[in-house]
Amino acid sequence: MNGPNLNLLGKRQPEIYGDQMLADVEADCRSVALEFGVDIRFHQSNREYELIDWIHEARESGAAILINAGAFTHTSIAILDALNTFDGPVMEVHISNVYKREAFRHHSYISQRADGVIAGMGVQGYQLALRRAIALLQDGSIDVRVG
Amino acid sequence: MNGPNLNLLGKRQPEIYGDQMLADVEADCRSVALEFGVDIRFHQSNREYELIDWIHEARESGAAILINAGAFTHTSIAILDALNTFDGPVMEVHISNVYKREAFRHHSYISQRADGVIAGMGVQGYQLALRRAIALLQDGSIDVRVG
Amino acid sequence: MNGPNLNLLGKRQPEIYGDQMLADVEADCRSVALEFGVDIRFHQSNREYELIDWIHEARESGAAILINAGAFTHTSIAILDALNTFDGPVMEVHISNVYKREAFRHHSYISQRADGVIAGMGVQGYQLALRRAIALLQDGSIDVRVG
Amino acid sequence: MNGPNLNLLGKRQPEIYGDQMLADVEADCRSVALEFGVDIRFHQSNREYELIDWIHEARESGAAILINAGAFTHTSIAILDALNTFDGPVMEVHISNVYKREAFRHHSYISQRADGVIAGMGVQGYQLALRRAIALLQDGSIDVRVG
Amino acid sequence: MNGPNLNLLGKRQPEIYGDQMLADVEADCRSVALEFGVDIRFHQSNREYELIDWIHEARESGAAILINAGAFTHTSIAILDALNTFDGPVMEVHISNVYKREAFRHHSYISQRADGVIAGMGVQGYQLALRRAIALLQDGSIDVRVG
Amino acid sequence: MNGPNLNLLGKRQPEIYGDQMLADVEADCRSVALEFGVDIRFHQSNREYELIDWIHEARESGAAILINAGAFTHTSIAILDALNTFDGPVMEVHISNVYKREAFRHHSYISQRADGVIAGMGVQGYQLALRRAIALLQDGSIDVRVG
Amino acid sequence: MNGPNLNLLGKRQPEIYGDQMLADVEADCRSVALEFGVDIRFHQSNREYELIDWIHEARESGAAILINAGAFTHTSIAILDALNTFDGPVMEVHISNVYKREAFRHHSYISQRADGVIAGMGVQGYQLALRRAIALLQDGSIDVRVG
Amino acid sequence: MNGPNLNLLGKRQPEIYGDQMLADVEADCRSVALEFGVDIRFHQSNREYELIDWIHEARESGAAILINAGAFTHTSIAILDALNTFDGPVMEVHISNVYKREAFRHHSYISQRADGVIAGMGVQGYQLALRRAIALLQDGSIDVRVG
Amino acid sequence: MNGPNLNLLGKRQPEIYGDQMLADVEADCRSVALEFGVDIRFHQSNREYELIDWIHEARESGAAILINAGAFTHTSIAILDALNTFDGPVMEVHISNVYKREAFRHHSYISQRADGVIAGMGVQGYQLALRRAIALLQDGSIDVRVG
Amino acid sequence: MNGPNLNLLGKRQPEIYGDQMLADVEADCRSVALEFGVDIRFHQSNREYELIDWIHEARESGAAILINAGAFTHTSIAILDALNTFDGPVMEVHISNVYKREAFRHHSYISQRADGVIAGMGVQGYQLALRRAIALLQDGSIDVRVG
Amino acid sequence: MNGPNLNLLGKRQPEIYGDQMLADVEADCRSVALEFGVDIRFHQSNREYELIDWIHEARESGAAILINAGAFTHTSIAILDALNTFDGPVMEVHISNVYKREAFRHHSYISQRADGVIAGMGVQGYQLALRRAIALLQDGSIDVRVG
Amino acid sequence: MNGPNLNLLGKRQPEIYGDQMLADVEADCRSVALEFGVDIRFHQSNREYELIDWIHEARESGAAILINAGAFTHTSIAILDALNTFDGPVMEVHISNVYKREAFRHHSYISQRADGVIAGMGVQGYQLALRRAIALLQDGSIDVRVG
Repeated sequence: MNGPNLNLLGKRQPEIYGDQMLADVEADCRSVALEFGVDIRFHQSNREYELIDWIHEARESGAAILINAGAFTHTSIAILDALNTFDGPVMEVHISNVYKREAFRHHSYISQRADGVIAGMGVQGYQLALRRAIALLQDGSIDVRVG
Repeated sequence: MNGPNLNLLGKRQPEIYGDQMLADVEADCRSVALEFGVDIRFHQSNREYELIDWIHEARESGAAILINAGAFTHTSIAILDALNTFDGPVMEVHISNVYKREAFRHHSYISQRADGVIAGMGVQGYQLALRRAIALLQDGSIDVRVG
Repeated sequence: MNGPNLNLLGKRQPEIYGDQMLADVEADCRSVALEFGVDIRFHQSNREYELIDWIHEARESGAAILINAGAFTHTSIAILDALNTFDGPVMEVHISNVYKREAFRHHSYISQRADGVIAGMGVQGYQLALRRAIALLQDGSIDVRVG
Repeated sequence: MNGPNLNLLGKRQPEIYGDQMLADVEADCRSVALEFGVDIRFHQSNREYELIDWIHEARESGAAILINAGAFTHTSIAILDALNTFDGPVMEVHISNVYKREAFRHHSYISQRADGVIAGMGVQGYQLALRRAIALLQDGSIDVRVG
Repeated sequence: MNGPNLNLLGKRQPEIYGDQMLADVEADCRSVALEFGVDIRFHQSNREYELIDWIHEARESGAAILINAGAFTHTSIAILDALNTFDGPVMEVHISNVYKREAFRHHSYISQRADGVIAGMGVQGYQLALRRAIALLQDGSIDVRVG
Repeated sequence: MNGPNLNLLGKRQPEIYGDQMLADVEADCRSVALEFGVDIRFHQSNREYELIDWIHEARESGAAILINAGAFTHTSIAILDALNTFDGPVMEVHISNVYKREAFRHHSYISQRADGVIAGMGVQGYQLALRRAIALLQDGSIDVRVG
Repeated sequence: MNGPNLNLLGKRQPEIYGDQMLADVEADCRSVALEFGVDIRFHQSNREYELIDWIHEARESGAAILINAGAFTHTSIAILDALNTFDGPVMEVHISNVYKREAFRHHSYISQRADGVIAGMGVQGYQLALRRAIALLQDGSIDVRVG
Repeated sequence: MNGPNLNLLGKRQPEIYGDQMLADVEADCRSVALEFGVDIRFHQSNREYELIDWIHEARESGAAILINAGAFTHTSIAILDALNTFDGPVMEVHISNVYKREAFRHHSYISQRADGVIAGMGVQGYQLALRRAIALLQDGSIDVRVG
Repeated sequence: MNGPNLNLLGKRQPEIYGDQMLADVEADCRSVALEFGVDIRFHQSNREYELIDWIHEARESGAAILINAGAFTHTSIAILDALNTFDGPVMEVHISNVYKREAFRHHSYISQRADGVIAGMGVQGYQLALRRAIALLQDGSIDVRVG
Repeated sequence: MNGPNLNLLGKRQPEIYGDQMLADVEADCRSVALEFGVDIRFHQSNREYELIDWIHEARESGAAILINAGAFTHTSIAILDALNTFDGPVMEVHISNVYKREAFRHHSYISQRADGVIAGMGVQGYQLALRRAIALLQDGSIDVRVG
Repeated sequence: MNGPNLNLLGKRQPEIYGDQMLADVEADCRSVALEFGVDIRFHQSNREYELIDWIHEARESGAAILINAGAFTHTSIAILDALNTFDGPVMEVHISNVYKREAFRHHSYISQRADGVIAGMGVQGYQLALRRAIALLQDGSIDVRVG
Repeated sequence: MNGPNLNLLGKRQPEIYGDQMLADVEADCRSVALEFGVDIRFHQSNREYELIDWIHEARESGAAILINAGAFTHTSIAILDALNTFDGPVMEVHISNVYKREAFRHHSYISQRADGVIAGMGVQGYQLALRRAIALLQDGSIDVRVG
């Protein structure tokens, strides 16, 4: 799951976010998913409620969640509350190292629920987080829901 | 590089740190290193100055640094200053999700220098961080110094 | 009016929120409304803007507002501003005692506008708040808008 | 149980506290108690130690406690500690919406123990809190101690 | 661009916001636009994501942005991030002098990106900010996107 | 009225303050004043007491005040107190967007009295603020005192 | 009215409080009262509730209150609330200059209600405060209640 | 001297305070007193003023004070002020390790006067503190006042 | 000594400062001075340096200082440092009760040096402070410098 | 276990630490150990890592730990983490009453793990803490590791 | 350049500032200047604006600035802004070690611009700072402006 | 004495620390020592305990201490405590102006003991501090211990 402004990935501020597009990220994730034989769903939205709705859906149909909530990371207790209703592994991903940037990006509500956090690993962070989620689920045949 | 108390990994507080030993972690890292054909050095110390000295050595002989500085993460400006003298990639690893634990574990001096941060991915976090470091160096034939 | 994640009431974290569904809450409210002969409308949304729009509508057609804004309670100045445009009684309801939970749940923007606040009374809190709203309006024949 | 200055209820600052007297509040509570067939004791004191002593007595003879500790709400850890020795339901009542008033009234030590909190519902808040206490005790025949 | 609750302009709290309607504001802006021969688009929404989407659109078709994000000013990092993807002048407008009001209105995420800020100039603030945006673009013939 | 160091306008730090001189600013203001037929007085001083004295004089002979108090904005309660003795419109002007600069420039004592605030609009901000002051006085024939 | 530990005046810490006894203070006050022909009552207690009760009594029989609440000054919201129910002049007296002592003595709840405050004037402060109270009541023939 | 709620010792929250009664504590203290041939007085009160009065009495008749002020430890400047009038050794005792509990229990006004502090040593802490007080007084024949 | 804006006393904000002029204050002080046979000098300035210079002069020719530094009270360490070079009694006077006003008026640098502080006693505060200064100097024949 | 600078005990700042040497402290401890028939090891080091190593050793061979970590008390999370790996009783000792000294000495990381804390009891504190440790272990025949 | 109260150097508080007069300081500086063949100007003023004016003059005629702004160090953003307009070396001097004194003396606006800072070196600090300024200018023949 | 990472002086971050090596610094100090006929010892270590041990040695054999503790400046209370055991002059040196850098470098534990502080004077700062230490010792023939 990808939060606000990530639809512009690769187009905006490449000095911070690099020049890969979100489609490239999805392709990367799908190649890891293929390697382990799991199924993923890939979303992006600028709408907080869509992220919440997708998390609610994942309660039914997903085994794990990878989430880069963008700016909502720092402001949305509603997304945290939604994640608190989910039982499987939750991986939090940030493309840039948020701990080096403005002070308001140092705090994450999502980290209070996340099992693991990756920041500053660029778009490769998605692949690494996916590897972790699959390892936690242990058996690659189950349905891994990536975002 | 591993900081204080990590020599007890697998023996202390397994509900937080799991039951793998530091030797297992080293073996994991070496298997990734083998896969990519890079050379690693693996250290642990309870002594802040040894971590500083190893970082200074890495200026000469290392291409990248993976560091889990344990409790020094939150208190050692001296290690941050040492890392600031190093030019290659720096990956910060924490076994547990430090952002969920006591407030004094939420701040990391090392994050101010690290290129990437992984927390809460268990001992698998070392492998993932190593993959990222190798990717940044792009060419697996160069000498990657892990810790 | 009910905010984000309340659609899962009774399904998520029953140790915090109990096991009654939102439909049960609506039924409870309707029984009190029936007792006093007032009309209520009952809403839930994960979308901040819908809560705002409903408050705007209540300016025209509602006599009082009962609101459990969930996580938006602590983050949404926009909902506070909307409530500030409403002239009738505003009752703020929380199912759990938010003052006992994480520090970020202790502050409510809505409390700055609310006439009354109920927390930790479980789903019964809605009924009690409705009784108060009706008492304030004094005359049961007027249209009470509950959320 | 009612804390300091509440003996002046109805006489002081009616724009904040309304014009009902404490005797009216007691009558209100007794009518609810009658409706549910429970027994209540009603107290007021300007003495912190009397509130503590009454809570200690309630350990023996009371099933639930309703408390409006007035100014002690914000300053008395001793009352909190006393309430922590009590096993039944504790309902915290404030006549005015304390969250709208001076900053020092926003924090309540009692909320850290209370099962439920009502603020800003005027003297009606006592009745509503009593309904909740009775509901928690489930069986109206047991002795409900109101303050 | 106008944020939440501004659709009620002129109807709510006239002692703070005056009695001009949003349509009057648009007319004012259009008269300035006409004077300088520029084209403007005028929007209002209670939805955070629409403001984000419009900013994304302005990356393609707009030369400057005037934004009164209402309550989102103080809470939305997502809008700040969207504005950070835009290259032209950004003017921040507030009808009231927010620095005189509640403390939570003193901080603006948008000010961290805005080139200029106007507060407390009433609805005339829009016209003044538009004059500034046009001056920055220097040549009135280019397309100025006002919100 | 212009505060300390503004005598160097156009000579110091042009990357912050631009390259227009204070005389240019005065000329700009006079052209707007001419357009509306009002009279202005234009001052600059590095002396806090002269700003105070001029504000006292304006009580007798001025209809409105435009003030860019420079560094005194952030430190002088004495100027705020002086402005509090003045009845007409007060416009606060900053050439740079002070909210983007050092934290100690984010707070303004003057904003607590000012009717309107303009920041980051460069020297054009004076003209815009003057337009607003004249609009507030409504009738261009009265004596507008600019600083 | 005198708060806790003031019964030891003249016996404890004379370097802070001087060597006059409380009886001397009373005599001083009575001599001023005699000069102006007013009646005073003089109390001291280590009990917070007695101070509250005396304030309640003063609502009936007192025209003004002089209060040195000692340590309760800094901790008792209950006394502040009691004073808020009193309509006449309230004078706050401290023998030492509390603003020079420990930080926890710099804040006074009583100052939020007091008309006037005197600190560091030694026991003479009582006389001076009494003169002020009498001046406010304007007519020396009315009953002035000093503590 | 023992503060509020300590009369319930052994009856309330044994997981924090253990299961020894206050009478057991007194017996323990008396056995140490007997060993050293000193005389002790043992008190408990829920009343802040009684603690103050006993400290005042100890000025006359006591050689040392042992005090467990319970919740008053964290809130009572009046008790601190009373202790400041006492010249002999003051020992502060807490049964539980207050530094591990809620943040509001970490600060003690009494520690600003106490010669020694013991926390978390259970009821044995009284005995240990008594040994220290006796050692400070050096000569066991003098009258040691324990609370 | 009187600080900035006090030259407008009686003309500005009479709801805060009353309607007596500074000349009336001087007359009041002179009448007390006459009663005790002391000599006073009375100053007012909006200039911080004049206050400093007068304090320096008082080192030579004054026995005591009465100072109402107005807004400089809260911001001028330079005046505090000047007062620290003076050996005689220093009385701090505020016409209004500054502890009830904006938070930035609660802190006084001057209080760190002042022997006594009077606030909220209106212009009568000058007379009362003068009585205290004379009492401290004990012998009315010496030269008392009042500001 | 004794931390940095304690090797100078009795030589440095006797007004704070008294004039007994560390060897005297060891002798005191050994006499208590002898009384109860337990075995102790006594260490001092200025090296943080030696304290950590000794704690690790105590995991194998010690039954309880007495620790006066000196300045490391306030700065070393690494020592806290080491203590967290130890299962037996931990007693924290400070010779002086650290809560009366500089603010940075009020916080102890070690207190978050310690079972008991003694401060300000001079070198006698070691003996008292040892008594407590032995009591907790209940059976004096087991090996008590003192530092 | 020397700020407020430094005209009293050697006369006030010699325990803090020593007993050398400002004329001695000037003589010291001149002897160093003579040694290196540079020209200095030496000023002192209690007036903030004179310090600002002298800095402005130094823009024309000075190569370096030594400044001891006294109390203005901690309060004057105007002096910082003036220094920001100067291109040459700026040396900040304090006679006493300000970091050991009151907390409000720990922060210096001037340090944000100064190249070097000397504190607690007594009046010798001026000489040392002058040596540094000359070293930075490298060539002793240029005009060094000392304050 | 030189703290961690200073062994890399001249090699690391020359934009902050310049390009002189630590050996150059030692040579500079020795030339000043020679000029005044004093003896110095010059150390560097990355080990906190070695700095502590050297300070302990200096108690026996040194007359003054010059210390640049690097990062330990901001974190080591143990070094402060060691310095507190030393009686002679202590000079604190920083090569860069630490007050301009990250906030965590603004606070120095060492400044609480140091007689003088020099920052931002580059490696010349050592020479200047040495001159001051010698001046304080007054007689060049005594043994000056430089770090």
